[in-house]
Amino acid sequence: MPKAQSIADEVRRRIVELKWRQGERIPDEAELAVEFDAARATVNKALQVLADEGLLDRKRRAGTRVAINPVSKATFSIPIVREQVEEAGMAYSHRVVAQRLSPVPAQIATRLGLPEGELLVHLRAVHYADGKPYQLEERWLNPRAAPGLQQADLRDLNANEWLVRNAPYLRAEFFFSAENADRRDARLLQTRQGQALLILHRTTWNDLGPITTVRVAFQPGHRFGAGEGRDHAG
Amino acid sequence: MPKAQSIADEVRRRIVELKWRQGERIPDEAELAVEFDAARATVNKALQVLADEGLLDRKRRAGTRVAINPVSKATFSIPIVREQVEEAGMAYSHRVVAQRLSPVPAQIATRLGLPEGELLVHLRAVHYADGKPYQLEERWLNPRAAPGLQQADLRDLNANEWLVRNAPYLRAEFFFSAENADRRDARLLQTRQGQALLILHRTTWNDLGPITTVRVAFQPGHRFGAGEGRDHAG
Repeated sequence: MPKAQSIADEVRRRIVELKWRQGERIPDEAELAVEFDAARATVNKALQVLADEGLLDRKRRAGTRVAINPVSKATFSIPIVREQVEEAGMAYSHRVVAQRLSPVPAQIATRLGLPEGELLVHLRAVHYADGKPYQLEERWLNPRAAPGLQQADLRDLNANEWLVRNAPYLRAEFFFSAENADRRDARLLQTRQGQALLILHRTTWNDLGPITTVRVAFQPGHRFGAGEGRDHAG
Repeated sequence: MPKAQSIADEVRRRIVELKWRQGERIPDEAELAVEFDAARATVNKALQVLADEGLLDRKRRAGTRVAINPVSKATFSIPIVREQVEEAGMAYSHRVVAQRLSPVPAQIATRLGLPEGELLVHLRAVHYADGKPYQLEERWLNPRAAPGLQQADLRDLNANEWLVRNAPYLRAEFFFSAENADRRDARLLQTRQGQALLILHRTTWNDLGPITTVRVAFQPGHRFGAGEGRDHAG
């Protein structure tokens, strides 16, 4: 939709240059359609792009206003660790430190919405780049939401890849936090105890229930980020 | 588009239930239009939703296939700190520790694409929730991309809010990392030196150049996250 995109770009420019200021009502679709020599549906599409970005507030009767305190939305990709390492030109390997059926502890059970003590697959693995620890994962997997899991050999295909291919999710939650490396983190990541580590917790669900929850501890100094690119949205 | 949404839901269900497996070609638009008793444009819209989610690969001639190694995309909002604190039912306050025109150091200059030593506004501020440190920000602001900045009193309206109202951005980059609190971090966040801190670096640009770059250090234990919600996409 190049026409809608160019209208969105122009409206965004007017907001950025403060020609249309926060809280102000902008001209309605019909007026903009005349100004831009475009169909109303095209103007509508352009304004929706900006509403999705958080720059405009659209109300059916009250019309469209420049958003007050627009919320910045950022999108990032959660990469497949093997691809990430190989794209950086390094050799990927991984080692499963532990894989066993274990009763799920209370904190994890709460996160998954399962009863405490239910038997899940507990997995601890280290991913390496050129033989150096790249990230450490501690994962709980629910065989009831991932049929075939108990027959899978996660030493060959890693859990990340197995899940991507065999258990697509419908819903996911994640959060970042920072933790001081404990004794085990330090040993497996080959760093010192107390080192600040970036941690990503992520949980996924499908129709059958929770699939997996994972705590990923990145190597010290790791940066996890992306561009937001309002100009690329829509 | 409730019809397109329901078609997208059904196609997503077939992928999640492995009826259509990774790498497989799915029926073409015309066949799906017959099956779902819908217009081809509606089917096209539904498939585009799933392509945007990363579940389908669409190629003009080769048709549509279930994506191999679908990339998970996560979206989160970067909240306005005052609103975040107040929504949690706490009283917000903030204190500007330092605000002065300073020559920009090399590392920050590189990130901004500006010459080292250029004069920018350097700001250090602490945000409090119920009187306890909530986050610490160290910020560089470029007056050339934010006209009016030098006249603004950032002790009253905080920089975050001033920027949101007066300098909308076109492009942004961010990354998360973890750092051990240094002496100043520890003093301003009222924690111990060495405590692991979650750090968010964020830089924004408009047509005039870089607007600002900020290092936000969150209080110890802070979690930053969101739901991904493939089922809500599109």
